[in-house]
Amino acid sequence: MQKMEVKIPSYPKSSYTIAIGAEFLSTVLLQIKKLLPAGQLFVITDANVAKTKHLKNLLGKENIPRFVITPAGEKSKNINTVTKIIEQMEKKSLGRDCAVIALGGGTVGDIAGFVAAIYKRGVPVIQIPTTTVAQADSAVGGKTGVDSSISKNAFGIFKNPAAVFIDVSTLKTLDERQFNAGLVESIKHALIADANYLTYLQKNLKGILARKQKPLEYIAVKNCKIKAAVVEDDPYEKNKRRILNYGHTIGHAVESASNYKLLHGQAVAIGIIAANIIEQKLGLGGKERLEVLKKLFGRLNISLKIPKNITKWQILDIISRDKKTVQKWPRFVLLEKTGKVLCKNGQFAIQVERKIVEETIDILLKK
Amino acid sequence: MQKMEVKIPSYPKSSYTIAIGAEFLSTVLLQIKKLLPAGQLFVITDANVAKTKHLKNLLGKENIPRFVITPAGEKSKNINTVTKIIEQMEKKSLGRDCAVIALGGGTVGDIAGFVAAIYKRGVPVIQIPTTTVAQADSAVGGKTGVDSSISKNAFGIFKNPAAVFIDVSTLKTLDERQFNAGLVESIKHALIADANYLTYLQKNLKGILARKQKPLEYIAVKNCKIKAAVVEDDPYEKNKRRILNYGHTIGHAVESASNYKLLHGQAVAIGIIAANIIEQKLGLGGKERLEVLKKLFGRLNISLKIPKNITKWQILDIISRDKKTVQKWPRFVLLEKTGKVLCKNGQFAIQVERKIVEETIDILLKK
Repeated sequence: MQKMEVKIPSYPKSSYTIAIGAEFLSTVLLQIKKLLPAGQLFVITDANVAKTKHLKNLLGKENIPRFVITPAGEKSKNINTVTKIIEQMEKKSLGRDCAVIALGGGTVGDIAGFVAAIYKRGVPVIQIPTTTVAQADSAVGGKTGVDSSISKNAFGIFKNPAAVFIDVSTLKTLDERQFNAGLVESIKHALIADANYLTYLQKNLKGILARKQKPLEYIAVKNCKIKAAVVEDDPYEKNKRRILNYGHTIGHAVESASNYKLLHGQAVAIGIIAANIIEQKLGLGGKERLEVLKKLFGRLNISLKIPKNITKWQILDIISRDKKTVQKWPRFVLLEKTGKVLCKNGQFAIQVERKIVEETIDILLKK
Repeated sequence: MQKMEVKIPSYPKSSYTIAIGAEFLSTVLLQIKKLLPAGQLFVITDANVAKTKHLKNLLGKENIPRFVITPAGEKSKNINTVTKIIEQMEKKSLGRDCAVIALGGGTVGDIAGFVAAIYKRGVPVIQIPTTTVAQADSAVGGKTGVDSSISKNAFGIFKNPAAVFIDVSTLKTLDERQFNAGLVESIKHALIADANYLTYLQKNLKGILARKQKPLEYIAVKNCKIKAAVVEDDPYEKNKRRILNYGHTIGHAVESASNYKLLHGQAVAIGIIAANIIEQKLGLGGKERLEVLKKLFGRLNISLKIPKNITKWQILDIISRDKKTVQKWPRFVLLEKTGKVLCKNGQFAIQVERKIVEETIDILLKK
């Protein structure tokens, strides 16, 4: 097990610990109790995780109150689920000294983090991510949120965890589609921050896909180091943190237009290819990189074609309503080279003219 | 107009300004625009305030989107109202760079502060309190929250305002019952922090009740200074901030047991008398003070008798479920003397045996 400190430039807690390892889930509850000696605990998980042995591994024979989000996934990520959970916590007479444990993927972490942020003006949350996407991305950095009937993450807040426990053994129960899609965030991390990491991913993809402990631990550590460095620098996404949105502008739009039939990682893969095409059109190079990425995504069985039922106009409409638009047009995170994001006049989100974006979408529709 | 800085020991903003004066509401929008030049604005107010001229005074001819909470008051202070407001903000295409203006009493400030805290992971809120209770208490210090179907402020968060504008002229439209009840928080501030302020309130109550500008400005400044000093010291209510709950343990219980037919201040007046009786039973003195307070509350037309339909057992049940209980029994804030809270072993919330509390409630039931 390795430990890493992530600084939070904020009162009341100035850092939290991420523990990364394998087969240690059964020791986590004891560690949480040491960290938060006074508090009652409450577990939030989902119907998918409840089918696995993880919950039992975590809790042993302890009878800790819990909420199982049903159905698992995006459908439940809304304010009604939050209300149900909070009312259940009240029924269990949980006070301000309680803590929330999030056991599951990104959706569970997002909901549980938000619940913890607003329950009786805030209680700690411990993140125990069990998916590739949550271990690589969502469990670290404090973004939480749920959807309204109108848009994604309309309700949300920055809520840093009190601790993160990443047990890569939990990934063994994940279905292949989810497992592979989550690896796209690892590829994104390599692209924005570390060219050698991209080489590592190419060379070790076989072991990763076979879910071998060593490479899974390696990428978990690498992902957390890259993400932590970015969020420490810019916890509230004023500028640099935007680099984590590489591939996400068009990615999110495609995900949304697919009505969430595409997984987040599958859509972000399309968004990463789109960003690479834009980079080439802007003379930023990266022709070889595009080939490397196509091959890598191919090995993950991820289609790089925008699904047939989605139109260019849908995508353009969605990106013009993105949270990060300026005058109804998004800015794009682009690479200067593999492992380094383009920074223009101190800004990491760059204006790209509409024509270039449209041509890029056309290419991905025809593919 | 006077200005005061309140420190927040927290990133991203380390202080905010409270502006206090009279007849300056029509200049506030310009000040907000200077403070937050980029953002779109959104006003949250309620049906009571909408009937007055305050909204027009604030906005002039500007067409700024707004939400009018209907009906005004505690009934609307719930998560459904929050959801409605957030969906309206989304329909108005408000981005992360928007800011929320809260124009109204404590309920409006609580709802608007909470909405601002969770809208797209947080936007600034400007508090413009228009009631005695909000000007004395709720607009400063960052407590926000709404009720669940089970308990009060089950949803909530600490959200410091970007600025507070207190125009005491807005108090002129307040009905007498609300106006007088809100003054109880001023009396509470005097009791916990400043014996001379209590003398001032006794001597100047006539002018205050006549809503004269000078004494209203004086008490607004005094209240903000006292409250700011406490919340700067302990923003997240770990210990010292609890002194602001003087009279609130039994006060809240009576308010809740009355089904909110008693106004907050009316119930807190009963709670303050209860605390004074407990103090005497514990040998902390204050016999004269009790007489002073009875007279002062009498001049505010506030009854100090617990309403007939409320039983001792109801009150005991509610206080045993208080947010701040230890082993299902609340701790009490008590006075060492007028203007000074009792601090035992560094703690401002003191254990009081059940028998004494029961006897105190008996006295207030018989009164």
